[in-house]
Amino acid sequence: MDRIILGRIVTPSDIIENGWIGIRDGVIAAIGQGPAPSALDVVDATGSYVMPGVVDGQTHAGSYAGLAGLESTTRSAIAGGVTTIVDMPYDNPEPLSTVERLREKVAAIETLAHCDVALYGTVMPGQGTADMAPLIDGGVVAFKISSFESSPTRFPRIAADQTSDILAALAETDIPLGLHNEDQEMVRSGIAAARAAGRDGIEAHSDSRPIAAEMTASAAFFELGAAHGAHAHIVHFTTARGMELADQYQALGYRATGETCVHYLVLDPQEHGPALGARMKVNPPIRPGARDGLWNEILHERVAFVSSDHSSWPIDNKFTPSIFDAGAGVPGLETLLPAFFTEAERRGYDAPALTAAQLSERPAKFFGLWPQKGGLCVGADADIAIFTPGEHVWDSAAAHDDLKWSPFDGHRFTGRVSRTYLRGETAWDGSDVVNRPGAGEYVRRGLWHWFA
Amino acid sequence: MDRIILGRIVTPSDIIENGWIGIRDGVIAAIGQGPAPSALDVVDATGSYVMPGVVDGQTHAGSYAGLAGLESTTRSAIAGGVTTIVDMPYDNPEPLSTVERLREKVAAIETLAHCDVALYGTVMPGQGTADMAPLIDGGVVAFKISSFESSPTRFPRIAADQTSDILAALAETDIPLGLHNEDQEMVRSGIAAARAAGRDGIEAHSDSRPIAAEMTASAAFFELGAAHGAHAHIVHFTTARGMELADQYQALGYRATGETCVHYLVLDPQEHGPALGARMKVNPPIRPGARDGLWNEILHERVAFVSSDHSSWPIDNKFTPSIFDAGAGVPGLETLLPAFFTEAERRGYDAPALTAAQLSERPAKFFGLWPQKGGLCVGADADIAIFTPGEHVWDSAAAHDDLKWSPFDGHRFTGRVSRTYLRGETAWDGSDVVNRPGAGEYVRRGLWHWFA
Amino acid sequence: MDRIILGRIVTPSDIIENGWIGIRDGVIAAIGQGPAPSALDVVDATGSYVMPGVVDGQTHAGSYAGLAGLESTTRSAIAGGVTTIVDMPYDNPEPLSTVERLREKVAAIETLAHCDVALYGTVMPGQGTADMAPLIDGGVVAFKISSFESSPTRFPRIAADQTSDILAALAETDIPLGLHNEDQEMVRSGIAAARAAGRDGIEAHSDSRPIAAEMTASAAFFELGAAHGAHAHIVHFTTARGMELADQYQALGYRATGETCVHYLVLDPQEHGPALGARMKVNPPIRPGARDGLWNEILHERVAFVSSDHSSWPIDNKFTPSIFDAGAGVPGLETLLPAFFTEAERRGYDAPALTAAQLSERPAKFFGLWPQKGGLCVGADADIAIFTPGEHVWDSAAAHDDLKWSPFDGHRFTGRVSRTYLRGETAWDGSDVVNRPGAGEYVRRGLWHWFA
Amino acid sequence: MDRIILGRIVTPSDIIENGWIGIRDGVIAAIGQGPAPSALDVVDATGSYVMPGVVDGQTHAGSYAGLAGLESTTRSAIAGGVTTIVDMPYDNPEPLSTVERLREKVAAIETLAHCDVALYGTVMPGQGTADMAPLIDGGVVAFKISSFESSPTRFPRIAADQTSDILAALAETDIPLGLHNEDQEMVRSGIAAARAAGRDGIEAHSDSRPIAAEMTASAAFFELGAAHGAHAHIVHFTTARGMELADQYQALGYRATGETCVHYLVLDPQEHGPALGARMKVNPPIRPGARDGLWNEILHERVAFVSSDHSSWPIDNKFTPSIFDAGAGVPGLETLLPAFFTEAERRGYDAPALTAAQLSERPAKFFGLWPQKGGLCVGADADIAIFTPGEHVWDSAAAHDDLKWSPFDGHRFTGRVSRTYLRGETAWDGSDVVNRPGAGEYVRRGLWHWFA
Ligand SMILES: [Zn+2]
Ligand SMILES: [Zn+2]
Ligand SMILES: [Zn+2]
Ligand SMILES: [Zn+2]
Ligand SMILES: [Zn+2]
Ligand SMILES: [Zn+2]
Ligand SMILES: [Zn+2]
Ligand SMILES: [Zn+2]
Repeated sequence: MDRIILGRIVTPSDIIENGWIGIRDGVIAAIGQGPAPSALDVVDATGSYVMPGVVDGQTHAGSYAGLAGLESTTRSAIAGGVTTIVDMPYDNPEPLSTVERLREKVAAIETLAHCDVALYGTVMPGQGTADMAPLIDGGVVAFKISSFESSPTRFPRIAADQTSDILAALAETDIPLGLHNEDQEMVRSGIAAARAAGRDGIEAHSDSRPIAAEMTASAAFFELGAAHGAHAHIVHFTTARGMELADQYQALGYRATGETCVHYLVLDPQEHGPALGARMKVNPPIRPGARDGLWNEILHERVAFVSSDHSSWPIDNKFTPSIFDAGAGVPGLETLLPAFFTEAERRGYDAPALTAAQLSERPAKFFGLWPQKGGLCVGADADIAIFTPGEHVWDSAAAHDDLKWSPFDGHRFTGRVSRTYLRGETAWDGSDVVNRPGAGEYVRRGLWHWFA
Repeated sequence: MDRIILGRIVTPSDIIENGWIGIRDGVIAAIGQGPAPSALDVVDATGSYVMPGVVDGQTHAGSYAGLAGLESTTRSAIAGGVTTIVDMPYDNPEPLSTVERLREKVAAIETLAHCDVALYGTVMPGQGTADMAPLIDGGVVAFKISSFESSPTRFPRIAADQTSDILAALAETDIPLGLHNEDQEMVRSGIAAARAAGRDGIEAHSDSRPIAAEMTASAAFFELGAAHGAHAHIVHFTTARGMELADQYQALGYRATGETCVHYLVLDPQEHGPALGARMKVNPPIRPGARDGLWNEILHERVAFVSSDHSSWPIDNKFTPSIFDAGAGVPGLETLLPAFFTEAERRGYDAPALTAAQLSERPAKFFGLWPQKGGLCVGADADIAIFTPGEHVWDSAAAHDDLKWSPFDGHRFTGRVSRTYLRGETAWDGSDVVNRPGAGEYVRRGLWHWFA
Repeated sequence: MDRIILGRIVTPSDIIENGWIGIRDGVIAAIGQGPAPSALDVVDATGSYVMPGVVDGQTHAGSYAGLAGLESTTRSAIAGGVTTIVDMPYDNPEPLSTVERLREKVAAIETLAHCDVALYGTVMPGQGTADMAPLIDGGVVAFKISSFESSPTRFPRIAADQTSDILAALAETDIPLGLHNEDQEMVRSGIAAARAAGRDGIEAHSDSRPIAAEMTASAAFFELGAAHGAHAHIVHFTTARGMELADQYQALGYRATGETCVHYLVLDPQEHGPALGARMKVNPPIRPGARDGLWNEILHERVAFVSSDHSSWPIDNKFTPSIFDAGAGVPGLETLLPAFFTEAERRGYDAPALTAAQLSERPAKFFGLWPQKGGLCVGADADIAIFTPGEHVWDSAAAHDDLKWSPFDGHRFTGRVSRTYLRGETAWDGSDVVNRPGAGEYVRRGLWHWFA
Repeated sequence: MDRIILGRIVTPSDIIENGWIGIRDGVIAAIGQGPAPSALDVVDATGSYVMPGVVDGQTHAGSYAGLAGLESTTRSAIAGGVTTIVDMPYDNPEPLSTVERLREKVAAIETLAHCDVALYGTVMPGQGTADMAPLIDGGVVAFKISSFESSPTRFPRIAADQTSDILAALAETDIPLGLHNEDQEMVRSGIAAARAAGRDGIEAHSDSRPIAAEMTASAAFFELGAAHGAHAHIVHFTTARGMELADQYQALGYRATGETCVHYLVLDPQEHGPALGARMKVNPPIRPGARDGLWNEILHERVAFVSSDHSSWPIDNKFTPSIFDAGAGVPGLETLLPAFFTEAERRGYDAPALTAAQLSERPAKFFGLWPQKGGLCVGADADIAIFTPGEHVWDSAAAHDDLKWSPFDGHRFTGRVSRTYLRGETAWDGSDVVNRPGAGEYVRRGLWHWFA
């Protein structure tokens, strides 16, 4: 063996106490219990959870700095135990909507990425669907659009007719179409009303982009998906009602799913708003009182998976007089695993099993990356995060994303990611990201089906 | 008694053979069987069905000629056995969105109407909701908006944020908000695509405004209604899927309903398109192959009620080179009852009972007009249609709407409306509309609840 | 007219204030409002509810005294506003299981009955199904069996195989098979256990014949009905779970229904047990805390109808040292209407409408007697109960059933039956039953379907 | 390592091609791919499926020969790749209903068994529930009763009251109560009717014990389970309706499950009856036309698991003039795995994954034996079956059960069990059962929950 890791091995079936993983040629060559075979390198993580590397189903690496953002984003990912990001297409200045852009992005990954990267594609207003098949051939795992325009050139609103065409083009495939689910008219009107009322703090944020705006966009989208028989996916439901709606459609045989993000599960504006202000501004907003409902949906397996929705905005764009001028989005790759694990544990759930399922196995299956990614299975890529129990107060000054701020600053996590291995190589040693830019690879959609 | 009518009395409970209705002071004073009391006037309709006057839940009297259109529209209604129309707000040039407009329309009714008239109100873009309460106090039975703009000033699109506000304003009431349910972007795009493809016949109409456009607008609207707890109503579903969607929402306790129109139940573009062309153009379009599914929904009582969607367009606006330039809408008040009755009978259903339920009792209950309107019940207004069995080939040259055209021209109906009484007075004698303009009255919403 | 009755007329559609009913030749010839036609007799019941005569869906007239019991039972019915009883087949000493017994019973009705009588038939152990068709031809409205043996010759248990055969024989018909739903083994064991524990009061009764015994017999029966496609009916569910179970089967398209009795809706052993003891012993037992759930099922229209389950046991058989030796069953025909009406009113429901629906219209429809029986409709039999508001304390000493006891003794009803008409003739004048024995007639099943 | 097995490793997550399993001290010490570690013994099963040993959830080892039957039954199990049997309690002459019997049976296992054995307990008529807790403490995995008496002393019918008591006693536990689900009265009557009609062949068998008899017993039992909140399990549903019924109860939150057996999935009396006759007699009977429906339920995961229902009847008891005198039950341990695998493959399903799930993982989880049993997981017992592809015509003359007959004689299986390991030791070498009697051990229920 090239390397042996000793510890509590979190497999899809159970947790192997006093276990080990053997790695050869970047792949999990063996998993065992008790005495381990010899190896060039033996990592003694006894007492720690040896977990599958996280597959973050929603990262925005290039929103701010363009493709160059892949470097710091993936460096942060590795430091957070995230070994694969599924990167959103809204790169600055131009999103990934053609094979040319795909080639450039793959090239950037090969040069810059510290972790593996799977890619969403998109379709620009007026583009037609002809460019989709080449992107699918090129390995994109999903397409994403938005019903709200954040930027006309980078993150545009796609009108209903074009959404319909895109869904029609995907109907015969396993590829989901993800939606950033906010109704543009309602949001613009809500913000204008709040501004007019002189409200400008974080407590006005949820009201200005109300649950109804999120849900009406989602219902319209699910119904379009149903009309075409395509897989329609909501990239961030913020309340249990979203998962209930997806379930309504699934019960009638339609392919409809909903994802949520870790901040919706951990933060509440009533509890954290006063201290965080714009630091907890994300879209759609974190809702007061929504956490218990969302966790209940997770326990009933009605949530497709949990992601970070990591955005690489500098803190500067949060320092605005009004919440409505502040940028939306938060860094999240280094806090994803510890925040989810800690909250699950605090609620009395089986934290390692739930974490492995929601952050690794389920997103890997959703995007067709399983069994290569997402589980500690023999034959899979040796993407591994070692999570060491022990109180760990998060301090974003130590973050690796060049952003150095976080809504979780000061949170007491019940452990930390002490090591990350990417395809068998040490990538994070607990202090430093030690692999080189370009160590990460582009990963393409495989054959796994989410729906039978 | 003032008047006695002898015949087969179709009451909400059953059909009284050899029956009679006694009228005094415009009200049904008695219903009986066998020897009838004496009266100033005795109408012998033995062998005919004595039915409740039709309550047409969707009429557009003033779309073309403005309030003046009330005269010919209600004259046609009376000739068709329709004793109450629920008139849509989209009057030319200005819709009913304020108390001032309500007063004008009520005044016009009192001067011009041959039948009774209940009214929908609307809200114009940017209007706010402050005018709604006065309209409710003024007796409107419902509000209507559209998700598609037919005319910026008369029939505008209402944006989602405003729709949300209107639903919020209605949440605590029994008043439904009706929607003309077509997604604007999809329709515009569909038409442009058809035009670009050189398609211009009626067979391109359904594709150009596809079922998906109808359903996505409806789903978004139902979800908004659910978010606010308001009663959301779709004024014309064209396929069974619409009723299924309403049922999905009702099963979870939300107030969601769907109506359909008689042309969706009787016509099919594949069968009738070649002969009718633009004469069968309505929006949303009549769908190929949809009739059986809709009738099945009626039998399972998942359709709120059936209406005419009568529009007073002159035939000239149908004579265009392209279907897309033709006006939408068809006259329908004189054919509503015979067309529905005939089709129900042809399919082997209990036609008189189904007709009384879907065209009179259910719309009356829906709009809070029951028990004053909608049923042959003692104490109710003596609004009566006598339907005399016998083959009757429809010839629109004989129509009373000043339009003189119909998609049903040449259809063989299994009977005809041989008399209509409005609050006890003869209004149609089988040859002529004999009551005077202004004999009709404005009727206000009463207390009946559709949802328990 | 032969007779006119003035009052508040409770029709299936609404209540006609200041109304009247005209009767000719025993039939409702007319219903009106305001000035009434002249008549030989005018009954001024102004202020009272003029209601459809009650159709009691479950009476045991001959359990004790045999066919002779028809006289006192129907006399009591008439005094209680019950104009049709659906009599159970378990006559003493021999039940109605053959055409010979049917002829005898019809003859007894023609001689003895004060009200109209529809009949259940039954099948005896080992009898085969050959006698069923003649009974159906003879007009029985339903069949009844029991899963518990009260008497081997009069009220025997029917084994599962024979139950299956009977259901198979009914599968192609509209005729329901009713079940007295208690599992024999569980009941016998429960009683033995209670006796062994020295429990002998009414508070031990429900435990000794537990809800589980009622439900397991019912579930087995519904499943058998489903297997054959027959209409399986439970004659007395005592809790909401029963109606939920029926609903489960209906949702999958099976014909399954449940009835309850007025005592389950009004009495509770914890409230009334100490005072009533065996006077409230019925089988299955009245359950503690079950009333609210049952009323909720009524409001959601999941209860087929409400009956009296009147049994003609003398009070002597209640005076036993142990509750387990006491006879089961209570007199109930004179209290059915006032007890149901009073409780509905006390709970704030629309008492006259609910009473007319649950005690008259629904049982008449269920047993195929509608529209001849069960509603104040023109053309229907003039079976009428006048219910006069005003506090009325029930005193069974004044009862007409020769039994002179009741679980409702001392209850304050909010009105009383002040008159009863049977097919137009005065049968009860508020003080005396004035029609002769034999005025009642045998009524046969008609064509009305309960399931579409 | 003590032993390494090379082959296609079928784990719960996926199939490891070119894989290996390492065994140490009877436990799976490691699983890997590619070059394997050194070991005392290396088994090269390249090309074969290395599967988890089968956990047969329903075996009757002692029905005929008493506890002595454990020897031949478990010998046959081992030859069939079955490493754990869950043995039914109906031993001859006395079933397992007390701790004394448990001790005897455990002693017999320790002396006689070739495979591991988990045990069902039972309760005899009139026994009370006091003996149940000691049996649970003693490790039984479930209790089993019958609603049909096959033998008064060995396989008695348990009456409803006692069934109710047993369910009540289990309500607070995870222990299921299994039911042999046939209504006794219906079966006895059905057989009598068939005999009377002179029918005596296998084609009369299903009719004589009809689906309705199976379902009515099952529905009564599920409802009793629901009444007590206990886990009610049907040990053999023969049609899809059974699984639908279980699903109805689960949808309302009740613990209800259904199992089926391999012969219901592979055989049909219309196809195989003429050749097999009584050789395919099992109770409840194999139904004509039921297979497709049952497989569909398996694909939708509504079947708890699949078992053999192996019975150790000598062929002699099948040679009777009438089917009704023939013994019921078939040998099945050596054909379970190949028959299920072959049929799944023939239908185009993922046979190795489905086999591992339905024959190993799911029964192990159901009986609380997971993760020690049921999956190729590190740390689990090294219970392994090697299934080698290749046509293999079943010849029961070669069977190891001392019975030497089978309903599958002559069937062409698509592979054979070429080796079996029990806790790491070779138990079957492809020709002979090579472990000694007593190598098998008694296994107790663990902590795994079937219901969350
Ligand atoms: Zn987003
Ligand atoms: Zn995002
Ligand atoms: Zn419209
Ligand atoms: Zn319209
Ligand atoms: Zn009873
Ligand atoms: Zn009874
Ligand atoms: Zn069995
Ligand atoms: Zn068995």
